[in-house]
Amino acid sequence: MTSAPVGQTQIPAGQTQTQKTPSPAAAGSLKDVIAAPTAICTIDGVAGRLIYRGYSIEDLAAHATFEEVVYLLWEGDLPNKQQLEAFKTRLAAGRAIPKVLVDHLRMVPPDAHPLAVLRSGVSLLAHYDPAAESMDPVATRAKAERLLGQVPTIVAARARMREGKQPVEPRDDLSAAANFLWMLFGKEPDDVTAHAMDVAFTLHAEHEFNASSFAARVAAGTYVDLHSCMVAAMATLKGPRHGGANEDVIEMIEEVGSPARAEKWARDRLQRYLSASREERAKPELRFPGMGHAVYKTWDPRARILQKLAHEVAEQHGEGWIAEIQETVRTVAAEGLGLNPNVDYYSAGLYHALGIPSDLFTSIFATARTAGYVAHIEEQLKGGRLIRPRGEYTGPKDRQVVPLAQR
Amino acid sequence: MTSAPVGQTQIPAGQTQTQKTPSPAAAGSLKDVIAAPTAICTIDGVAGRLIYRGYSIEDLAAHATFEEVVYLLWEGDLPNKQQLEAFKTRLAAGRAIPKVLVDHLRMVPPDAHPLAVLRSGVSLLAHYDPAAESMDPVATRAKAERLLGQVPTIVAARARMREGKQPVEPRDDLSAAANFLWMLFGKEPDDVTAHAMDVAFTLHAEHEFNASSFAARVAAGTYVDLHSCMVAAMATLKGPRHGGANEDVIEMIEEVGSPARAEKWARDRLQRYLSASREERAKPELRFPGMGHAVYKTWDPRARILQKLAHEVAEQHGEGWIAEIQETVRTVAAEGLGLNPNVDYYSAGLYHALGIPSDLFTSIFATARTAGYVAHIEEQLKGGRLIRPRGEYTGPKDRQVVPLAQR
Repeated sequence: MTSAPVGQTQIPAGQTQTQKTPSPAAAGSLKDVIAAPTAICTIDGVAGRLIYRGYSIEDLAAHATFEEVVYLLWEGDLPNKQQLEAFKTRLAAGRAIPKVLVDHLRMVPPDAHPLAVLRSGVSLLAHYDPAAESMDPVATRAKAERLLGQVPTIVAARARMREGKQPVEPRDDLSAAANFLWMLFGKEPDDVTAHAMDVAFTLHAEHEFNASSFAARVAAGTYVDLHSCMVAAMATLKGPRHGGANEDVIEMIEEVGSPARAEKWARDRLQRYLSASREERAKPELRFPGMGHAVYKTWDPRARILQKLAHEVAEQHGEGWIAEIQETVRTVAAEGLGLNPNVDYYSAGLYHALGIPSDLFTSIFATARTAGYVAHIEEQLKGGRLIRPRGEYTGPKDRQVVPLAQR
Repeated sequence: MTSAPVGQTQIPAGQTQTQKTPSPAAAGSLKDVIAAPTAICTIDGVAGRLIYRGYSIEDLAAHATFEEVVYLLWEGDLPNKQQLEAFKTRLAAGRAIPKVLVDHLRMVPPDAHPLAVLRSGVSLLAHYDPAAESMDPVATRAKAERLLGQVPTIVAARARMREGKQPVEPRDDLSAAANFLWMLFGKEPDDVTAHAMDVAFTLHAEHEFNASSFAARVAAGTYVDLHSCMVAAMATLKGPRHGGANEDVIEMIEEVGSPARAEKWARDRLQRYLSASREERAKPELRFPGMGHAVYKTWDPRARILQKLAHEVAEQHGEGWIAEIQETVRTVAAEGLGLNPNVDYYSAGLYHALGIPSDLFTSIFATARTAGYVAHIEEQLKGGRLIRPRGEYTGPKDRQVVPLAQR
């Protein structure tokens, strides 16, 4: 991951790019290009606002559970009590994975990347789902409900297997967040931890046309089945410019090591960044991981919500040092560069405090974002068309094949 | 597949759409939007021209083998004799798949869709490739060379397994096209057949920003590994608006049944089409499969090239009736609607004449298009950025969460 070129995410707030992109085509990023209408989510990057189906993320995080948020994303409205109970019952019933899938997962070498294994797992699940090929909207929704339960089951089962432990069966009496921690650790989480995880799931559930959701829509544009669309999304989420970014935060925390060293570490990094050339500044070793965002020009609203919760959980698990390091580094980055943390900054701290290995973080992201993927896939399948842009050809012209012997 | 909504592909030549799309956003298709610069391929839909790296598809199909075309797509130039021999040796050496992958494939139920199984197979291959996570360009190219050999091996092995036959080991003394037919049938193809298949591979090798290649680029934009990008592409190719379209041609040929019935069948279909309403015309049962194309407004140049070859092979295999049906139906569609065949029309006829089951056609497409996917992935990894467009929000605004008990 450290060899990844760096995208747009580290532009300090208040600063604009000196070298403006001439056109989306030249950049090849579709940045700021409207790709399609959507009624699922909108982001105001300047105001730092994230809206799911008309509700602010602050309101949802404070007053709704992840299950209610999933229902909202899929149905367009929050459920009433009866609807919610029926939905939760259906979700809980779909959590188990077929035994043959466990057999497949056992065959995969322990060092395979967890998100690569999840990608394979979701692809394989299709072969054991009798409705896998159905394009009927009711069948698609039923598959979505199963996948929302099965994705975390694959993640947790595989995480235990590679450590030589037996998978823990899902429980149908726990929330999605609590059940995930149960399957991962074989131990029911306390209320504070379960709540923090539930909020983390809500914050990661959806984020407009991020690269992996857009990949899911490109797939859905060909009118392909749900599992195929989900596989395209998982494959795309794995990249370090996207879902893979949060592992870097842990590298930073571990490099700092203790709160006493945090301020010096942060000031050194700031100094090296400020005295570096424009090109050098793109290097991972000069950047503040988990700071800045491609869309948000101010605080990522999700970071503000998770900040307190992550610190509380760290404190409760005797890992308060993580919170201390994070706040010291954040303050130096804010003062020196006007940079603000994004959601990865605090979700990484939260998961680290819970003892979750950092290479699982993106799989947790995938678990929550499955909610958003389904909403985008259904929207694209329903009204959308084939997504097929054009290229701006920059290659050679008018060549003629010379016979092989004369080349 | 017959339930698929219909895209843009059946606009008769010379006719324009009466209802113009107001904007790409409204359509959600990115149609005619320039997404990125590319030096790989360009299409002139009006003139009916397809160009790989500056060479016309007619020139390449007539004077270069598939292996030379792959080298061209990846390197930018055609190989000389020495370069070609070395390349062919490396490709041939990479054709075997690990035994454990065969074990995985054997576990998958026989009725799973072949392209879904290929998607799983490519995803699983990553776990057994020691360089799967490497982003080094040299390692990526080596993986690409292996995948180009392994994809057809998976397709053929799986096709035999589901019929209860043993997979046939790849040979390193055959061309990619001949080796594929060898692995599929356990019998070396004659020269005419091997040549037709080689040309079909060349014609399907690349097609600018088609949906699956674009999906591969969206994945690559996150700086993810080659296998992940390939999986995103395979998942997207499966859709009936994209790679899955050629199976419909076989349904048509089988429905017609014999050359004697072809003209009546075609005139009936034409009559029903002409007397139908605009909405009804979108129904698959009123359309001419394999006719028209989203980008080409005249003959698909690939169809012209394949027409003669496909008919020759059909004749040679005692399946000349397929060619007769196809020509009769084509003539009626051209005279009545100004429609021209696309590449699927004749590749379907070719594969059908060879006795290949129609649900394998898209996997053959994937085998050839792997060449183009790799070129697009490498181009995006090298210079491209995160592909992340924006949505045009059309949903509700300013809602507030009402407590569950009051909903």
